[in-house]
Amino acid sequence: MLLLFTSLLAVASHAQAQGENYASAGYQRGFPDCQAGPLANTTVCDTAQDPLTRATALINLLTVEEKLNQTGSESPGVPRLGLPAYIWWNEALHGVANSPGVNFSDSGDFSYATSFPQPILMGAAFDDELIRDVATVVSTEARAFNNDQRAGLDFWTPNINPFKDPRWGRGQETPGEDPYHLSSYVHALIDGLQGGYNPKTKRVVATCKHFAAYDIENWNGNFRYQFDAQVNSQDLREYYLPPFQSCARDSNVGAFMCSYNALNGVPTCADSYLLDDILRKHWGWTNEQQWVTSDCDAVQNVFLPHNYSQTRPGAAAAAFNAGTDIDCGTYYQHHLPAALSQGLINETRLNEALIRQYSSLTRLGYFDGPQALYRNLTFADVGTASSQALALKAAAEGIVLLKNDGILPLQITNGTSIALIGDWANATDIMQGNYLGPAEYLRSPLIAAQNLGADVHYAQGPGGAGDPTTDSWLPVWRAANDADIIIYAGGIDISVEAEGDDRVAIAWTGAQLDVIGELASYGKPMMVLQMGGGQLDSSPIRDNANISALLWGGVPGQDGGTALFDVITGKTPPAGRLPTTQYPSRYTQQIPMTSMALRPNGSLPGRTYKWYDEAVYEFGYGLHYTNFSAEVSPVRSESYSIQDLVSNCTEQYKDRCAFETVNVNVSNDGDVASDYVTLGFIAGEFGPAPCPRKSLVNYQRLFGIQPGASQTARLNLTLASLARVDDRGNLALYPGDYSLLIDTQPLATVNFTLTGDETTIDNWPQPPAARSLASDYFVPGYGSEIVLDE
Amino acid sequence: MLLLFTSLLAVASHAQAQGENYASAGYQRGFPDCQAGPLANTTVCDTAQDPLTRATALINLLTVEEKLNQTGSESPGVPRLGLPAYIWWNEALHGVANSPGVNFSDSGDFSYATSFPQPILMGAAFDDELIRDVATVVSTEARAFNNDQRAGLDFWTPNINPFKDPRWGRGQETPGEDPYHLSSYVHALIDGLQGGYNPKTKRVVATCKHFAAYDIENWNGNFRYQFDAQVNSQDLREYYLPPFQSCARDSNVGAFMCSYNALNGVPTCADSYLLDDILRKHWGWTNEQQWVTSDCDAVQNVFLPHNYSQTRPGAAAAAFNAGTDIDCGTYYQHHLPAALSQGLINETRLNEALIRQYSSLTRLGYFDGPQALYRNLTFADVGTASSQALALKAAAEGIVLLKNDGILPLQITNGTSIALIGDWANATDIMQGNYLGPAEYLRSPLIAAQNLGADVHYAQGPGGAGDPTTDSWLPVWRAANDADIIIYAGGIDISVEAEGDDRVAIAWTGAQLDVIGELASYGKPMMVLQMGGGQLDSSPIRDNANISALLWGGVPGQDGGTALFDVITGKTPPAGRLPTTQYPSRYTQQIPMTSMALRPNGSLPGRTYKWYDEAVYEFGYGLHYTNFSAEVSPVRSESYSIQDLVSNCTEQYKDRCAFETVNVNVSNDGDVASDYVTLGFIAGEFGPAPCPRKSLVNYQRLFGIQPGASQTARLNLTLASLARVDDRGNLALYPGDYSLLIDTQPLATVNFTLTGDETTIDNWPQPPAARSLASDYFVPGYGSEIVLDE
Repeated sequence: MLLLFTSLLAVASHAQAQGENYASAGYQRGFPDCQAGPLANTTVCDTAQDPLTRATALINLLTVEEKLNQTGSESPGVPRLGLPAYIWWNEALHGVANSPGVNFSDSGDFSYATSFPQPILMGAAFDDELIRDVATVVSTEARAFNNDQRAGLDFWTPNINPFKDPRWGRGQETPGEDPYHLSSYVHALIDGLQGGYNPKTKRVVATCKHFAAYDIENWNGNFRYQFDAQVNSQDLREYYLPPFQSCARDSNVGAFMCSYNALNGVPTCADSYLLDDILRKHWGWTNEQQWVTSDCDAVQNVFLPHNYSQTRPGAAAAAFNAGTDIDCGTYYQHHLPAALSQGLINETRLNEALIRQYSSLTRLGYFDGPQALYRNLTFADVGTASSQALALKAAAEGIVLLKNDGILPLQITNGTSIALIGDWANATDIMQGNYLGPAEYLRSPLIAAQNLGADVHYAQGPGGAGDPTTDSWLPVWRAANDADIIIYAGGIDISVEAEGDDRVAIAWTGAQLDVIGELASYGKPMMVLQMGGGQLDSSPIRDNANISALLWGGVPGQDGGTALFDVITGKTPPAGRLPTTQYPSRYTQQIPMTSMALRPNGSLPGRTYKWYDEAVYEFGYGLHYTNFSAEVSPVRSESYSIQDLVSNCTEQYKDRCAFETVNVNVSNDGDVASDYVTLGFIAGEFGPAPCPRKSLVNYQRLFGIQPGASQTARLNLTLASLARVDDRGNLALYPGDYSLLIDTQPLATVNFTLTGDETTIDNWPQPPAARSLASDYFVPGYGSEIVLDE
Repeated sequence: MLLLFTSLLAVASHAQAQGENYASAGYQRGFPDCQAGPLANTTVCDTAQDPLTRATALINLLTVEEKLNQTGSESPGVPRLGLPAYIWWNEALHGVANSPGVNFSDSGDFSYATSFPQPILMGAAFDDELIRDVATVVSTEARAFNNDQRAGLDFWTPNINPFKDPRWGRGQETPGEDPYHLSSYVHALIDGLQGGYNPKTKRVVATCKHFAAYDIENWNGNFRYQFDAQVNSQDLREYYLPPFQSCARDSNVGAFMCSYNALNGVPTCADSYLLDDILRKHWGWTNEQQWVTSDCDAVQNVFLPHNYSQTRPGAAAAAFNAGTDIDCGTYYQHHLPAALSQGLINETRLNEALIRQYSSLTRLGYFDGPQALYRNLTFADVGTASSQALALKAAAEGIVLLKNDGILPLQITNGTSIALIGDWANATDIMQGNYLGPAEYLRSPLIAAQNLGADVHYAQGPGGAGDPTTDSWLPVWRAANDADIIIYAGGIDISVEAEGDDRVAIAWTGAQLDVIGELASYGKPMMVLQMGGGQLDSSPIRDNANISALLWGGVPGQDGGTALFDVITGKTPPAGRLPTTQYPSRYTQQIPMTSMALRPNGSLPGRTYKWYDEAVYEFGYGLHYTNFSAEVSPVRSESYSIQDLVSNCTEQYKDRCAFETVNVNVSNDGDVASDYVTLGFIAGEFGPAPCPRKSLVNYQRLFGIQPGASQTARLNLTLASLARVDDRGNLALYPGDYSLLIDTQPLATVNFTLTGDETTIDNWPQPPAARSLASDYFVPGYGSEIVLDE
């Protein structure tokens, strides 16, 4: 056994030797030389063939050892064949970002990329066209970086897990909490990133992550690496998976990433039910150009701490055989050789994984030579004036007005005296959140106010990370004394909410409320900018009559300060909507982060606006500088037959079939031109009890509605808009009374009825019997989930 | 109201203006000029008077405004009187340390101080003379820094809260979990720091912190700033307070620090029951040279988040009136002016607080001119050869041998081939933990092994902070392949356990167990160094037959690597004992960190070795390179009359009265000379049920017992050794059967009986009626403690 082990180590060691040395040996990343290299006359270089044929031909040229070498996120390539090294791990969450595969220059060309807001703020814009435009800029810049051998062609974005728990450190990476919203958003995003839903040559490959039920970093000893999410089929199908269905089934995304956590006892990267039964079979994601990567070292975590296999090769084989094609890390390269020699994997599966990788690269034009599409993009296409303007627009569109006693919009002219106080007042890279690359500039609120000619009295804040110190306070009082208007810009940043770092509380951190409260007692016009991705409980600000206004500004990217002041001054009137529920601070003491159920249960409150009704500000909330009213065109009928709806539907996936397109005529009844986000919710008593308060089914942002004028939003409802999920995960239509509500405090309502029998429109693949939810599941040696009440 | 507020701000602003500008205006820290300055002919400069008289005279010279200015941790002084600025906030936890009052030079003289191990490792030495020696070095170096105007004369050390919960991020700052151990340790420490228990001129003033029941940083939204510790009188008197009693009553410490948390509903800094009834009255800590400071911004926290007062001046007044003399921060300076004008405080109390401060400085020779004691100390007294040797000795004495199959001691000669792997292998400042100053050198395990002539194959580890990455693994396998012996040096550091950052799990972090397990499979001699202050669950290492040895090395200070290899090679045979329980990883899932009870209750396990019996390695555990046996001299009697014991006791504090001095004859039965820590535990069924498993009552470290030789330890038992605490906090003697156990797996046992009636020997002051423990206590707006089971 020891001898075998040693020899296998030698194999891995060989692989690594290549991986470590290819750069210094002049063997670098780059496009394969299909003109003069060893591959020139092989099928992979034959652009007349389809990607599968080309990739298969390539893989047939490799030895087993060479194949095993290409199973990690850093593929050393095959020198004898002129197959270059390739790094699969590239990031571009909200712009091309630092990562193993992305290499920014220290100065000059390629020293920056456009840095958009974090997705949570772009989600708040409820503007899918904006998302498509942003994603197109990101993929354009990514291609320019790739052409300079500074990035790969696949990017591990988007993070499309629903932002269920306000504590989640990575919620800022997502567009919000609502599964329909995320599904619609990601559909537009993938179009922009990949250059269409089925292009001949993809712009880049996007990667939907983290599949699935991943939304915990660490909470009371429940680390993401070992957490076993207990989710029933109803919640899985209804809440956790729709964005992924949108990625795979509806948007043809090129890649998926499985997650760190286990789902009902099986680490997702080793879960063939998830990766094969649902993802590939049920969603029809069967193209061999599509691959699954593990989250980084998630394969290692299958062994430890998940303890899903007794041996390391066994853990690697479990992930590989389940359908995880690429291991982010070196665990495959280190342990698959033993797995192969022990018969735990076979070469057929090895070929399949590699064909997926290289057919994906083929589809990206990797083997098509310098005349291929997108090869002409250069740094001149990075950070263009229009891209920079789009970054500003994306931020301004998302900012949400939560409170306004009339102080806003604020006239700021030369010499307007403003105290700008708080840790976000002179924000720099905290405006970029995480997964960031260098930006050409970072315009803080301070810079933006000065650019407007204001006389700014700036003071740093009392510290956002929870450790108050009054040492920095006296400049605060001086600034407040010296100014006519007080703006406090604080909240949280990645020192409080971050990857690996969930929050433990959602109250304003540290001494901020003390400082805000004291500033409010000055009796001067005062407003608060609540910054950060996750919501804070701002009820003390909402309820303080001496605070005139409250804006949520999220994580606004390179031009965040400008965007905030564009909204404050009314240059861009606010029209963003909260993409997540703002919970009261007690919420985190009422429910453990590990609880995955959406519905209220005993003393556990429900999750998201669908099930929780004590929000400080609810999902979709957002004020304007004007007032809107709405009228809804009558729908075809007051009553619909379920059987007619289903029998008239000829789509393969019946939930996509049209139901009604509802025209909503929105009128601006005030005196300020403004965008308006038309939100359509369905509510009613139908389907399995309990019924949600309401569910978002469509939205459309209208732009620049002039005072006294109106515009019409078209809300395209489908059978999915009406459907509910039963306890086995089946999607069905149910008889009952339905209401379509326009906006959170409805401006208009349409009622109608569905008649006939309950009819399933999507039969959900059932988990293996052994996978049924174990209420007393226990991860050996790592502690079970804390249950507050049983 | 606004006018008043504004004028009060002006006062505070004035104070701050001085505070901010005194340095730049040439008005700096330094000794008052009692020869030629304005104070020269005043009473404070009259060395013939007592400190109280002198300080009172000084305070009588100040205006009210000047007095209010001197209530923060940075006193601006009084320029017109030539009273210098003084910074109270100086740190010296395990050597003079960076802090507002301590200023290291960038190079040359005063660019470093001796950096001892963290207290948790010094505690493991169970050697009070060592602690006295270390403290003497620290106070000597502190005086040298003070003479160069680089430090103050008071230091905010020790942290003497018992290390109750293994998650606590600051447990490393304490000597361990046992209240007797801490009381004995701190008694020696204060002697060394202050230069005796009642010296005419103190070397420095020590500050016992954090008073009291502070041992949480943040846990699931329970931040130290708002946490309300619910502790009954029994646990308070028995567990949380003994070290503080040792400080105040038995060691005459110069200062106390109240803590962030509340205790049974009252923030400790505003708690006159704690600061007056217990500390000053019950413990006789009535000298006016003794003062209480708040932890930094703990006064601010009285307002928010504790919400203990409705107004900020009210919160400041509550703390001030309760006995908090100094506010670390600026909250007093900002809000006491309003408190005074509103009649919430009076000038008498203001005088008292300032007299305490300045009589303390007087007692330190501050007003005694350059001929005063300790004024001759210079940088030549810093980092002397003997001090550096003491830092090495302190580390080596504490290291604990947990497992050894005979591989240790290890012969290391020129060319011995060692793989040294892990994040602690080349440790630098992580060896210093927190509250550190620059050291002259930091000798890592790697350096130490190389100094021994070993052929070291070094590889960094897989990351200690919980985020595994296999990218760094292949060098690990190479190092292991290339060496004959494998040493893994890992564990945790201040990226995992830190101030403000409790752990959420106590399993080995990240991928370390995977790497360790794979290294063990090489079949080479292998050992593990478990580093860090808090314990990790090392049962997987204990139970792995392929791992030969396990050492716990704590946080070993500037010469930690040398100390580790001194123990490994047998140059210093191991004799340290675990100062805390090593709990299994499940423990943290079984009990919330907020639970303050010591005894098991329902499904909640007990805390510390006294109440918990499923330890991986128990408190006091530690192996040697030899075997010891022990014999105990018979005690006077097999039965004692409680009434006789009490009536023969003439001490003011009866618990101090002698009971028996037990002679323990310890024989070295093996063939390696070794130190031996003689631990004496009392066990038995007596007093209030339930009874603890056992309780440490005395210890003595014996040095260099030769093979075949023996030495005698003298364990001085007092009435406190026999006493128990009832549910009202009273200390009493109880009839029953007692056993004195020598060592954790007892080498010897003495049984005896106490007869007669239960007799109280310390009547505990009862809390005000309203302060009785509220089982459903709730901090408004901040969430209550999570209760797992009721």
